[in-house]
Amino acid sequence: MRKAMAIAVALSVGIGFALDAAAQERKPEDQIKMRKGALTVMSWNFGVIGAMAKGQRPYDQAEAVKRAEAVSFASHLPWEAFAPGTDTGDTRALPAIWQQQDKFKAAQDRLESETAKLVQAAKSGDVGQLKSQFGATAKACSACHDDFRKK
Amino acid sequence: MRKAMAIAVALSVGIGFALDAAAQERKPEDQIKMRKGALTVMSWNFGVIGAMAKGQRPYDQAEAVKRAEAVSFASHLPWEAFAPGTDTGDTRALPAIWQQQDKFKAAQDRLESETAKLVQAAKSGDVGQLKSQFGATAKACSACHDDFRKK
Repeated sequence: MRKAMAIAVALSVGIGFALDAAAQERKPEDQIKMRKGALTVMSWNFGVIGAMAKGQRPYDQAEAVKRAEAVSFASHLPWEAFAPGTDTGDTRALPAIWQQQDKFKAAQDRLESETAKLVQAAKSGDVGQLKSQFGATAKACSACHDDFRKK
Repeated sequence: MRKAMAIAVALSVGIGFALDAAAQERKPEDQIKMRKGALTVMSWNFGVIGAMAKGQRPYDQAEAVKRAEAVSFASHLPWEAFAPGTDTGDTRALPAIWQQQDKFKAAQDRLESETAKLVQAAKSGDVGQLKSQFGATAKACSACHDDFRKK
């Protein structure tokens, strides 16, 4: 009953919390696996754009768009799997995630915003824009890692 | 030079092979991590639909659509990370993947087709359609696991 209430409340305040409700039902080790999985998918696809930005791989607009869309999609997925109580085990997550929830949420928003711009930069067909937005997105990754991930 | 040629040839025959070219550049352990990550993202989101289909979670159309879209998106991602030579290490992938490439590709196509139908079923707002398509999608998962994954 309490769980049903919690889900009802969560649904009433929006999808973000509804997703959290889904996560609350999962074991901590499954949450850790999920968020790592989503971050791995993001990193893999971002790496292809990085290779293009650095000239290690030929620039290809269609490929860049596909990769940017995968990065953007994945950038929304890890956060629901950081429920309280998932700070131990096979994870580098720092306690700051749960101690500074507003700051952690702001870091997520920044990343999601930069990855949306990455899709636009890829669609522009301008390799200069892609390089610049690759850099801005990489900074959003690093900023969050600096504050919330063990070295 | 040979690598540039290989990429050029790959690009000329379509995105599938272009993705493979990207994967060839990655270490086997990174490929294994990537494909597991994508499959974990798919399974996590599919599990929420399963909970709705089984009545363990209240049916919510918007939530079902979001989850189905994540499942569908993720269903396209693992395959490029099954390059030859990634059959050992922390993986349950069977040699059949590389010995029966056409059959493995057919299993991928079946999954991607079923997950696209899952999005349509979720969008229909008909919980009966969602349940039915959850079952059909789960069968596509199992069929591939039966043939290509260690028990």
